[in-house]
Amino acid sequence: MLAVGLGPIGRAAAEVALGKASIELVGAVEADPAKQGRDLAELLGLRERSGIVVEGDLDAAIESLSPQAALLCTSSFLPEVQHDVRRLARAGVHVVSPCEEMLVPDFQHPQLAADLDLAARRGGATVVGTGVNPGFVLDFLPIVLSGACRSVRRIRGCRVVDAASRREPLQRKVGAGLTEVEFTARLRGGRMGHQGMRESVALLDRALGLGLDSITQTVEPVLAERRIVTDYFTVEPGQVAGVKNIGLGRRGGETVVELELRMFVGAPRPRDEVEIEGEPPLRLVIEGGVAGDVATAAILVNTVPRAAEARPGLLTILDLAPSRRIG
Amino acid sequence: MLAVGLGPIGRAAAEVALGKASIELVGAVEADPAKQGRDLAELLGLRERSGIVVEGDLDAAIESLSPQAALLCTSSFLPEVQHDVRRLARAGVHVVSPCEEMLVPDFQHPQLAADLDLAARRGGATVVGTGVNPGFVLDFLPIVLSGACRSVRRIRGCRVVDAASRREPLQRKVGAGLTEVEFTARLRGGRMGHQGMRESVALLDRALGLGLDSITQTVEPVLAERRIVTDYFTVEPGQVAGVKNIGLGRRGGETVVELELRMFVGAPRPRDEVEIEGEPPLRLVIEGGVAGDVATAAILVNTVPRAAEARPGLLTILDLAPSRRIG
Repeated sequence: MLAVGLGPIGRAAAEVALGKASIELVGAVEADPAKQGRDLAELLGLRERSGIVVEGDLDAAIESLSPQAALLCTSSFLPEVQHDVRRLARAGVHVVSPCEEMLVPDFQHPQLAADLDLAARRGGATVVGTGVNPGFVLDFLPIVLSGACRSVRRIRGCRVVDAASRREPLQRKVGAGLTEVEFTARLRGGRMGHQGMRESVALLDRALGLGLDSITQTVEPVLAERRIVTDYFTVEPGQVAGVKNIGLGRRGGETVVELELRMFVGAPRPRDEVEIEGEPPLRLVIEGGVAGDVATAAILVNTVPRAAEARPGLLTILDLAPSRRIG
Repeated sequence: MLAVGLGPIGRAAAEVALGKASIELVGAVEADPAKQGRDLAELLGLRERSGIVVEGDLDAAIESLSPQAALLCTSSFLPEVQHDVRRLARAGVHVVSPCEEMLVPDFQHPQLAADLDLAARRGGATVVGTGVNPGFVLDFLPIVLSGACRSVRRIRGCRVVDAASRREPLQRKVGAGLTEVEFTARLRGGRMGHQGMRESVALLDRALGLGLDSITQTVEPVLAERRIVTDYFTVEPGQVAGVKNIGLGRRGGETVVELELRMFVGAPRPRDEVEIEGEPPLRLVIEGGVAGDVATAAILVNTVPRAAEARPGLLTILDLAPSRRIG
């Protein structure tokens, strides 16, 4: 397997892969010149050398290493990963990616998704996006739960994350320490906060045939009510502590799907909740929530064999046998 | 689709199937002569006639109706369903069954499973066992959860069912109202209590590559501490209220899997719980639990399209894309 992209998620996934007997990590590719030429283990903070030298040229790595699969952890946006996907798919390399838009690639990019699907099928490669959020907590879990339901009227999901327990870039991403004005300005610039909320709603729509006629989201700042000190920030009362991101799926004026992500420093009672109004009604709670980065890294690696055994094409996780912990 | 076997689960599943736009129920087969020749709707207690007359001859029904799939709800034991499976598979009819032993068919019957797998592949049919328990709560849910784990050291599952809320045959099956001596005598006669506990442990073993060297179970009576009156039984203090069934998976003397089913009249706080000791640790709770019969009927019907799109053979639910509520 090839690790492509060595940001926080790519590094975490590479480390998980290194510990797996059933997966051989054969190489690592990263665009940042500062990381190239170094032993992967050094970047991961591991003591023992891995023998894998980080490269800069994906095509050369594919050519020399002939990997069967790749973890592609370079961007949240499908247009930004498309060229690497094409390179890998052309060579018949299966791709698993936490690219949020790839969860339901044709939701925002139908033409690009069709092109990539064709490229994947031509190359005999399976390409699929997954992760914890999107990809598991607010979409895959309710979909799996619905398997025990005769009817589903409404789906609610809620994920509460105390950003203070997470890495610094994530605290920065949710806007911790900003003023409300700064937050709103950054939000307008795009790319603020969580990506993939609408893809979660879209995956539910597709899986359950909900026939939604609108999929929208709101992103709002959550303001601190008291001073909060994290390892990286001090947030004063009235400053931004983080975000509240709500994804809505509506059909005929009725809200059928409501997914909520609250991610802010000091968030009380971190948890994941899924509720299905239906027959039977079901309500699932994971106290503490599914830990972010380690779980995302695990899901990526655990999905590799499931992608490899699936048919070629740009698929969704609904097309794969369910990922489980691999050895 | 063909409904084969019209006991409580078969009837519930047939009723679910009748309500689905994406499935056409074309016939029903039942061995009990008292049910044959009647309109299916009558047996289901529905007002409107279904136009489906219950038949007795499976081969004739396959021949005349050419179903694409069948729900086979006739027995908990693989040897008892094998002939019908062969008949259906030979004709290329996909089979979904709540037969508990079929969840992991080669666990108790490796030779028979190999024979049925061959028959299914020759006929181009997919044959798979599923349900709520086994098939969902204590096995599939922890397997799906493990997808978010980098490592898994230990799995615990606990399902608590208040049998008083369930149908009379189930209350009878768990031994409600028996003396401890009667319970033990019936237990020795086999076929008492819950079937499929060891199959749940075996499915976890297989899915996660746990390398268990022993899979065992215990079945004990739970004695009533107070008088309990249900719609069907009165259980006096000291009489049997139901069963406690524990499935254990061990490796090198260590308990790696522990699944517990408590099913008795008056059981407090019905719920389903799954706990994974691993990285990250995960604990999931469904208060109230996944309702038994309606959820089993739903899972069976929801699995039909997933079986139909899978490769031919005697498979397990691990080989299928995850079932979700179908329309």
